[in-house]
Amino acid sequence: MTSSPTSQPSSRNCLAIVLAAGEGTRMKSAKPKVLHQVANRSMLGHVLATLAQAGATRIAVVIGPDREDVAKEVQKISGEARIFVQTDRLGTAHAVLSARESLAQPVDDVIIAFGDTPLILPETFTKLRAPLAEGAGVVAMGFEAKDPTGYGRFITSGNQLMAIREHRDATEAERAIALCNGGLMAIRGDLALPLLDRVENKNAKGEYYLTDIVEIARSLGHRTAIAVVPEEEVHGVNDRAQLAAAERMIQDRLRGAAMAAGVTLVAPETVFFSHDTRLEQDVVVAPHVVFGPGVVVEHGAVIHSFSHLEGARIASGAGVGPFARLRPGAVIGPKAKVGNFVEIKNADLGAGAKVSHLTYLGDASVGAEANIGAGTITCNYDGFGKYRTEIGEGAFIGSNSSLVAPVTIGKGAFVGSGSVITDSIPDDSLGLGRGRQTTKEGWAISFREKAQAAKRK
Amino acid sequence: MTSSPTSQPSSRNCLAIVLAAGEGTRMKSAKPKVLHQVANRSMLGHVLATLAQAGATRIAVVIGPDREDVAKEVQKISGEARIFVQTDRLGTAHAVLSARESLAQPVDDVIIAFGDTPLILPETFTKLRAPLAEGAGVVAMGFEAKDPTGYGRFITSGNQLMAIREHRDATEAERAIALCNGGLMAIRGDLALPLLDRVENKNAKGEYYLTDIVEIARSLGHRTAIAVVPEEEVHGVNDRAQLAAAERMIQDRLRGAAMAAGVTLVAPETVFFSHDTRLEQDVVVAPHVVFGPGVVVEHGAVIHSFSHLEGARIASGAGVGPFARLRPGAVIGPKAKVGNFVEIKNADLGAGAKVSHLTYLGDASVGAEANIGAGTITCNYDGFGKYRTEIGEGAFIGSNSSLVAPVTIGKGAFVGSGSVITDSIPDDSLGLGRGRQTTKEGWAISFREKAQAAKRK
Amino acid sequence: MTSSPTSQPSSRNCLAIVLAAGEGTRMKSAKPKVLHQVANRSMLGHVLATLAQAGATRIAVVIGPDREDVAKEVQKISGEARIFVQTDRLGTAHAVLSARESLAQPVDDVIIAFGDTPLILPETFTKLRAPLAEGAGVVAMGFEAKDPTGYGRFITSGNQLMAIREHRDATEAERAIALCNGGLMAIRGDLALPLLDRVENKNAKGEYYLTDIVEIARSLGHRTAIAVVPEEEVHGVNDRAQLAAAERMIQDRLRGAAMAAGVTLVAPETVFFSHDTRLEQDVVVAPHVVFGPGVVVEHGAVIHSFSHLEGARIASGAGVGPFARLRPGAVIGPKAKVGNFVEIKNADLGAGAKVSHLTYLGDASVGAEANIGAGTITCNYDGFGKYRTEIGEGAFIGSNSSLVAPVTIGKGAFVGSGSVITDSIPDDSLGLGRGRQTTKEGWAISFREKAQAAKRK
Repeated sequence: MTSSPTSQPSSRNCLAIVLAAGEGTRMKSAKPKVLHQVANRSMLGHVLATLAQAGATRIAVVIGPDREDVAKEVQKISGEARIFVQTDRLGTAHAVLSARESLAQPVDDVIIAFGDTPLILPETFTKLRAPLAEGAGVVAMGFEAKDPTGYGRFITSGNQLMAIREHRDATEAERAIALCNGGLMAIRGDLALPLLDRVENKNAKGEYYLTDIVEIARSLGHRTAIAVVPEEEVHGVNDRAQLAAAERMIQDRLRGAAMAAGVTLVAPETVFFSHDTRLEQDVVVAPHVVFGPGVVVEHGAVIHSFSHLEGARIASGAGVGPFARLRPGAVIGPKAKVGNFVEIKNADLGAGAKVSHLTYLGDASVGAEANIGAGTITCNYDGFGKYRTEIGEGAFIGSNSSLVAPVTIGKGAFVGSGSVITDSIPDDSLGLGRGRQTTKEGWAISFREKAQAAKRK
Repeated sequence: MTSSPTSQPSSRNCLAIVLAAGEGTRMKSAKPKVLHQVANRSMLGHVLATLAQAGATRIAVVIGPDREDVAKEVQKISGEARIFVQTDRLGTAHAVLSARESLAQPVDDVIIAFGDTPLILPETFTKLRAPLAEGAGVVAMGFEAKDPTGYGRFITSGNQLMAIREHRDATEAERAIALCNGGLMAIRGDLALPLLDRVENKNAKGEYYLTDIVEIARSLGHRTAIAVVPEEEVHGVNDRAQLAAAERMIQDRLRGAAMAAGVTLVAPETVFFSHDTRLEQDVVVAPHVVFGPGVVVEHGAVIHSFSHLEGARIASGAGVGPFARLRPGAVIGPKAKVGNFVEIKNADLGAGAKVSHLTYLGDASVGAEANIGAGTITCNYDGFGKYRTEIGEGAFIGSNSSLVAPVTIGKGAFVGSGSVITDSIPDDSLGLGRGRQTTKEGWAISFREKAQAAKRK
Repeated sequence: MTSSPTSQPSSRNCLAIVLAAGEGTRMKSAKPKVLHQVANRSMLGHVLATLAQAGATRIAVVIGPDREDVAKEVQKISGEARIFVQTDRLGTAHAVLSARESLAQPVDDVIIAFGDTPLILPETFTKLRAPLAEGAGVVAMGFEAKDPTGYGRFITSGNQLMAIREHRDATEAERAIALCNGGLMAIRGDLALPLLDRVENKNAKGEYYLTDIVEIARSLGHRTAIAVVPEEEVHGVNDRAQLAAAERMIQDRLRGAAMAAGVTLVAPETVFFSHDTRLEQDVVVAPHVVFGPGVVVEHGAVIHSFSHLEGARIASGAGVGPFARLRPGAVIGPKAKVGNFVEIKNADLGAGAKVSHLTYLGDASVGAEANIGAGTITCNYDGFGKYRTEIGEGAFIGSNSSLVAPVTIGKGAFVGSGSVITDSIPDDSLGLGRGRQTTKEGWAISFREKAQAAKRK
């Protein structure tokens, strides 16, 4: 995704004010709306990250009272953002004015963005600001609505925006207009406070509406422009169905980008990415795969069906799954294989190592070409501390073994099937730790007789 | 879902006759059509449950000969329903008359419903009956068909239904009518038998058609009305593709209802519910989750991807999956965690207990804050009986242990990794049952030489 | 899928030339385009298999230079196909002429097909050839394009094809034509070389275009006909998004065919088939199931959610999953059950045998009605060779056991939970191989004290 070079007002600085104080009651949630996630990042996080990519020089976020959780998320994504609290809910213009201190500092452009429109793109902010560089005082973001019912309509004359008419106030003719208000605005920096301070609350709800600055700007002789974007980009989230719709749109973007980069998604609609998933060329992802945050898959690796990956790095030519769970810190070496019902956490597999079935590898290091038998468990936790297991190159761990950490299995060493290994094993040696077999001939005959007799009682 | 209060004819009693004798040959199945399931309940079960919700006073079901399986399903869902067998297949009116005994008892309203339309809603039956309370003799259910080809058309005059014209008998002009016959009917109780007994079989197929009662009623001076519903509600199932379509529609309803109640479905189209799944507010369901019957998930619990739940109760704040299998009788306590490749059956986990990996817990009880290590297996079955495992609060079960039931692990007790535990362990004690490790230095060198020599032979 | 008998020109022989030399740069892949797969078979493999079904007498494949991988795939699917290498890329007619040797041998019909249109059907080739039997010299395959932009247009007069006009050369009026060139052609055998040799490269790109033979044929007085197919069938694949679209279309065909045959797919869109999956009547497939190549499921078996099957045969009445992985050579007997987190490879289960949980069965044979406990592992590999495990009828393998192959468990024998079994067990006997339990009372109290003291340091 690259911005059009002609529209990039790179020499102008920019303050972005993000409105994130909405209660989101239709979400029916104890969690504030803007913290609900899409593609494993909060909606607010998406907007803040996009603003940073779009070159916002300063960011101010307006949050509701007692929302430490929202403030924390802002700090996590944009460490330098300023946070303002809107104590009363008196409309969008009032919300913007909560950031009066930021607005009072000189700036070329002011952007008003929203914490619940996670699909906005960096180039969209650039497009929104462009008319300011060409002399406009206010720019409003519009979209052609498939169904405009309920939206404010743009009353235009040529390129000029005359007014934004709320649906309930619109005439029949105005309601036929499909160009609707997308909410976002750009304001010339020196006009922002003067315009906002002129907004009045003489309306049915007694609120201060941001949209009023269009007519105020015009009445003061300033030019008002529009920037039009696809409806998807200004998709706002007010309930869980709209949240699911936003997720679908962002997943479709991520899927499309992966395929365009030379990744095979056998069934794109069944693969779920995080916002930060990185897949290299000729990676193949089978149906039904879920990527949590922080995954990198290198050239030509194959992720089989029913795999769940998070915080993992998978090297070139490796194979993962089906039914593999990679947790943070899993590092899978070149041509290594992770098979079914295997969990790997904070462990690295050397080149060509194999962990094929029913295994838990936690806090471990496995050397190149080592073979970990089915049912192997690293016993890395004793109820208090976590300990490491080191397995050398070319080692062979027999099936159903328990490796009680801290423990080292030497290079080329063997562990006998079903062993509990508590002491380290030198290179090229065999460790065994299991009971010796005894066989009781005919035992089953009498057992069955007794069991059946017991049942009859 | 609430019925419109104005249309609720609550003071009138009602007999519902459900036609469930169809052979369903296009299903290509050894199972009778009405027993095929959507959302984990038979289609017939859906119709019977909906009739009960709609306040049907009496229910009669007409089934085919030798269909004990259908009779059993009727008994399971509607214990008091009467069952009638249609021995010959002589048309829909003939099928209804198989329930003559029920029709002969006085009743205000009679509804004719179908066992293969599982998407019907309670309020639809209410709507169908409403005109009877206002004096109509017969009410037919219609829908605006996207593609009316093949359906009977409603010939109307104002609100009056004049006739139902079969597609093959319809004129060009009549075929242009999109309002089609949905099959369901309501009849004034005292008219039902008199009208049905007048139906004749003078037609190409020699069958008795229920639709004929419209014209018969009119010829006797009775008013005939229509009730119009969305096409989805009268979606009938005649083959497996239509069964899949019914499943998709009912899943979309269940998904929509969950989201409206404040549940996050990250990818609704990948989550499959049972008709009775109950999810509380702020539950989060990740992509790719399947709910079998009887699941309740309380406030704020998270169900991770690739989980399969049936007959389980999950308390507030608990986490399940990815790759968890909960079977009937699984009770997961508040803030307890069930991790990957874990199966739980008929077992309860106390608050904050953790079963993180590769474990089978069957017929067990786990105390609060206990930790069950990876690879733990409750050996609950000896080939004849099933036995319980009791694990105390705060106990720590080392990885890869086998707990041979009946057995009790005391509060705060430890089990050493890889142990086979056959005897109960007192509180705060340690149980160990595993072989002692021996190490054979250099063994692997000679093993490899021998193995390679053997291969060369 | 059956061809219309009237259009089958069975008495005429046929040479098919498949163009498979395209580089497919938009795929961004190290793998040649025609080897990318849909439904687990290469696109080229689909075309070759379809040609064989359509009765092509001889097949010639034109591949790019140094493409041993493509040549190998051709040999695998169509052992008798001849392979020609196109060294320079001078257009489609030039590519066809790379197979001059094959064209020089007498034949009734010549078909030109493409290695990147995997959705073509056998009857389509039949339809394409039909006009040749009725006297046409050249037949071109067309389709009604939803969006014709970019496609060559068919300029027709009655049934006659006058010319194929490239989009860039088309007039406004010609661009309004929706009937577009699908690429495939049929040529009367004796005309093929004479027409192709007349194609010139006097155009902007200096290439030899196959489409030119239409006008050449007409100029020589031959009749040129068209065959029209649904757009889907000539869907070509040039990038990964089109590959995913082809996969979706072929999956939809396979799903539709399964349902038409009497299989229940609860959620067809979540089930992925291989081109060769065979499911019998009354099989039920739950949501989220993936079929790799070579699976056969017999009458009435149930495949539960999150199952992954490849090269497996599942007998009547068996149950598989959820969370089952069947690998090549898995043979599941009648009414046998494979449960969750179970992997089966090269192993057969007798009738009614149960492998319910957390098990790896590899290179094994399990007798009828045997019960394999949770956590059982067949230790079939010692780092060098693979060995078999034989389990007799009615045997009972206790949970968490390791069966070290080669080993035989006799009929009706028992293995104690947690045992490592290295020696065979006779019929009706008990094998035990585990440590004896010791209990250290109060141990946990001092352990906790020491652990906490260590943490405090």
